[in-house]
Amino acid sequence: MIHLEGRSSIEAALSAGRRRIDVILVKDGSHEEKLGELLAAAERRRVPVKRVSGDELDRLAHGRSHGGVVGVCAPLAPTSEQELLATLDGLKSAPLLLLIDGTEDERNLGFTLRSAEALGATAVLVKKHVLDFDETEVSRSSSGAFERLPLVRIDRESELLRELRRRGLALVGCVAGAKRAIWEVDLTQPSLLAVGGEKRGLSGAVREECTLFARIPLRAGAPSSAAATSLSMSHAAAILLAEAARQRSTDLARQERGRAE
Amino acid sequence: MIHLEGRSSIEAALSAGRRRIDVILVKDGSHEEKLGELLAAAERRRVPVKRVSGDELDRLAHGRSHGGVVGVCAPLAPTSEQELLATLDGLKSAPLLLLIDGTEDERNLGFTLRSAEALGATAVLVKKHVLDFDETEVSRSSSGAFERLPLVRIDRESELLRELRRRGLALVGCVAGAKRAIWEVDLTQPSLLAVGGEKRGLSGAVREECTLFARIPLRAGAPSSAAATSLSMSHAAAILLAEAARQRSTDLARQERGRAE
Repeated sequence: MIHLEGRSSIEAALSAGRRRIDVILVKDGSHEEKLGELLAAAERRRVPVKRVSGDELDRLAHGRSHGGVVGVCAPLAPTSEQELLATLDGLKSAPLLLLIDGTEDERNLGFTLRSAEALGATAVLVKKHVLDFDETEVSRSSSGAFERLPLVRIDRESELLRELRRRGLALVGCVAGAKRAIWEVDLTQPSLLAVGGEKRGLSGAVREECTLFARIPLRAGAPSSAAATSLSMSHAAAILLAEAARQRSTDLARQERGRAE
Repeated sequence: MIHLEGRSSIEAALSAGRRRIDVILVKDGSHEEKLGELLAAAERRRVPVKRVSGDELDRLAHGRSHGGVVGVCAPLAPTSEQELLATLDGLKSAPLLLLIDGTEDERNLGFTLRSAEALGATAVLVKKHVLDFDETEVSRSSSGAFERLPLVRIDRESELLRELRRRGLALVGCVAGAKRAIWEVDLTQPSLLAVGGEKRGLSGAVREECTLFARIPLRAGAPSSAAATSLSMSHAAAILLAEAARQRSTDLARQERGRAE
């Protein structure tokens, strides 16, 4: 059983409809107006709502910020490799995938999913062995993106990266030492962006599958500094995805101008 | 008294040399090799090192991840408005400032400082009333950037934004509803990027000072979705700063090509 905590996670789970929700526990005396939408969505999905004491809710929740509502749910089934490939087959635009090759922190994973969804990623791939993550934390920090965005867990034996290469995707490994800046890579093409964890970077196994490498230039144009600066995994991922979004949007604008002429 | 926790915060404080460090407490039995650099830096700065029991360290630290070392320091004096203006006067390249107009979370502030330093920001401005922040958390999550990057705290009565405008900086307010995408704004010019907190966005007082507005397009080019997607403050800030870094680096490359021809 998974306990989803907080309104936004539970509302996202209700509206995405990708997992069974057994019951929603609401703290006795919670303001009805604040929970109006959630209660209406629960009724539409025929999910029972139960009033419980604040103490009981605190005991069930791990966080301090459940805000008076906890959803008791089945775990969310990850998207399978076959489902991902079927999604890619049905896609009208060039796919944009993100591979997370390591993270030690549920919040970072959640934030990355949130950015990935907001910036138009098709799906996120995550190494299976890296993190046996706590869904409650991931869902909360993802602002619900965890409930909506396809998340594929791949293991060491997976042939998925090779299959994606066969399908013509560029597998772009993001490493600090790469010669090319990310904005020098054509990301309007079908692409997978691979980012490593903060401690170990991109693994050898993933590097072997990459078709090219790129870096996010740090302190570009600024006076050089002895300070060891770096970006966190989730911030690097957001920057990479935003660069893909920029290229795709300006490319689209160019195509539209071309058609109009 | 401030307790800096963990090796990277304390090493950064020692090497930045911007605050008094009274004593460094090291857990009895800690591996000397791991702390070698820190102990050498402490000796250079003549900061006494004291061995204490693990229990004592746990009592002093708020986090669970002090890793066996706590620094007892004076608070870090913020950069004053006058110091910032003097820094701008001495700058050879176009300044790039970030204004954080709201955040409820020390970790987000720390991550934002880390990205800002890595991506070449000159300084970060933060509203004084927003967050009376816990330096320990900010320093830790900033990976030391808090010790190095000028941080200016401005209050409601501050004339700083007006002064920056007078000095020719573009004050770019980042708001979801803006017509212009951030990559349509010339960020090679002296610029300040203003981002709002997640709950309230950019305040009216800051909006009034902005010279133009821009947005980070979300789900650009992807099929529209009913889902309410958004970026966290720290991820939005990282994307904006990276876009400035991209424009400045490609502009520099163009200038160099021009000079070579």
